[in-house]
Amino acid sequence: MNVEQNIKVAVDAIVFGYTEGKLHVLLIKQKYGPMRGRWALVGGFVKTSESLIDAIHRELKEEAGIVVNFLEQLYTFGDDIKRDPRMRVISVAYFALIKNESVDLKADTDAEDARWFNIDELPQLAYDHQKIYEVAMNRLRAKLTYQPIGFDLLPKEFLFSDLENLYSTILDREIDRRNFRKKILGFEMIEETDKFAEGKPGRPAKLFRFNRQKYNRLVRDGFHFEI
Amino acid sequence: MNVEQNIKVAVDAIVFGYTEGKLHVLLIKQKYGPMRGRWALVGGFVKTSESLIDAIHRELKEEAGIVVNFLEQLYTFGDDIKRDPRMRVISVAYFALIKNESVDLKADTDAEDARWFNIDELPQLAYDHQKIYEVAMNRLRAKLTYQPIGFDLLPKEFLFSDLENLYSTILDREIDRRNFRKKILGFEMIEETDKFAEGKPGRPAKLFRFNRQKYNRLVRDGFHFEI
Repeated sequence: MNVEQNIKVAVDAIVFGYTEGKLHVLLIKQKYGPMRGRWALVGGFVKTSESLIDAIHRELKEEAGIVVNFLEQLYTFGDDIKRDPRMRVISVAYFALIKNESVDLKADTDAEDARWFNIDELPQLAYDHQKIYEVAMNRLRAKLTYQPIGFDLLPKEFLFSDLENLYSTILDREIDRRNFRKKILGFEMIEETDKFAEGKPGRPAKLFRFNRQKYNRLVRDGFHFEI
Repeated sequence: MNVEQNIKVAVDAIVFGYTEGKLHVLLIKQKYGPMRGRWALVGGFVKTSESLIDAIHRELKEEAGIVVNFLEQLYTFGDDIKRDPRMRVISVAYFALIKNESVDLKADTDAEDARWFNIDELPQLAYDHQKIYEVAMNRLRAKLTYQPIGFDLLPKEFLFSDLENLYSTILDREIDRRNFRKKILGFEMIEETDKFAEGKPGRPAKLFRFNRQKYNRLVRDGFHFEI
């Protein structure tokens, strides 16, 4: 059967990390093509005999040298038929949250460089990747309202202020600290350890960790979180 | 630029309607191809210069003669590389809820027939459409927990038992009626009219309607609904 269609299928990944109190996005510098020298999301064309999910894992490995355990399908971008100036390309975009402090990036193949960018200092992105980034940020913001967040981004032990700062960063606004603390503790998604943060000036601050069982139950059952 | 890739892009729509107390899905009978005579979701190949959303609206019009105002992207199916026995095809699936009682179906082009099927009596579906149906049902079930549902499915005026039955049908289980009533009325998503249902035996039952303003606010802000 011959189908008269000339559309190519790509995959792109928007990978969020959280370092030094800032939300970061993984970008690569394009080595070839019309967007050479521009920063873009990791991604590329799917091979004919490769599943979509295998394709995005391969691209993450090839272009940035990283392995991401969990990827969630975000959205398929294919309404703007000129989103790639060379030809019609639709892109299936994936979304991931990782602890990026311990990840070594290594650019290769189509990527001249691979780096984490603070979301407040993103460069101009290639293709429609700014749009993909915005859809991903909206997804992340929406998730906050019905699921706990943080386990995939924060270190094993963290300060309460780290979690508060993460929520505030994603929401892109100040949050009511008392109210936030009351709700988070009420959900029992985190618990105190008996350790204190070292090397910080002032009164020593307790370290917290996620209560994995409660956290997972909240992910599964959902809640309504408004701050 | 020449990309060595031979993948075709299709769109499919899973359209839910609610008639006579039952949830229904729109299916068409395949007129051609390896799945000839089998029931399938409305869908087909995207044209090279057509957006994805235009493609699915065109297919709905061509194959079933219907116009659906609101379609939401559900998921892109492309991990099973043999999902179409003829060639590699990925499908961007869309999801819609409509009041189907007033819709006239008219099969044409690739469809030999178009019909609403009660979800309890679905035929064996072509390709991986059973899988698409299951993902859509899960999406619908998940929606119930964080958003009100019903406005797109129920008539303008309805019995409280209609709404209760809709939720019970989607959840595929009995629900606690008292608890359900208390929660729904508590959210103020519906309000009593001064009319009564006609032609039903027994004590006349009040008709309700959605409070559009409150309903929309709940869609936007979300809630946590557990029954």
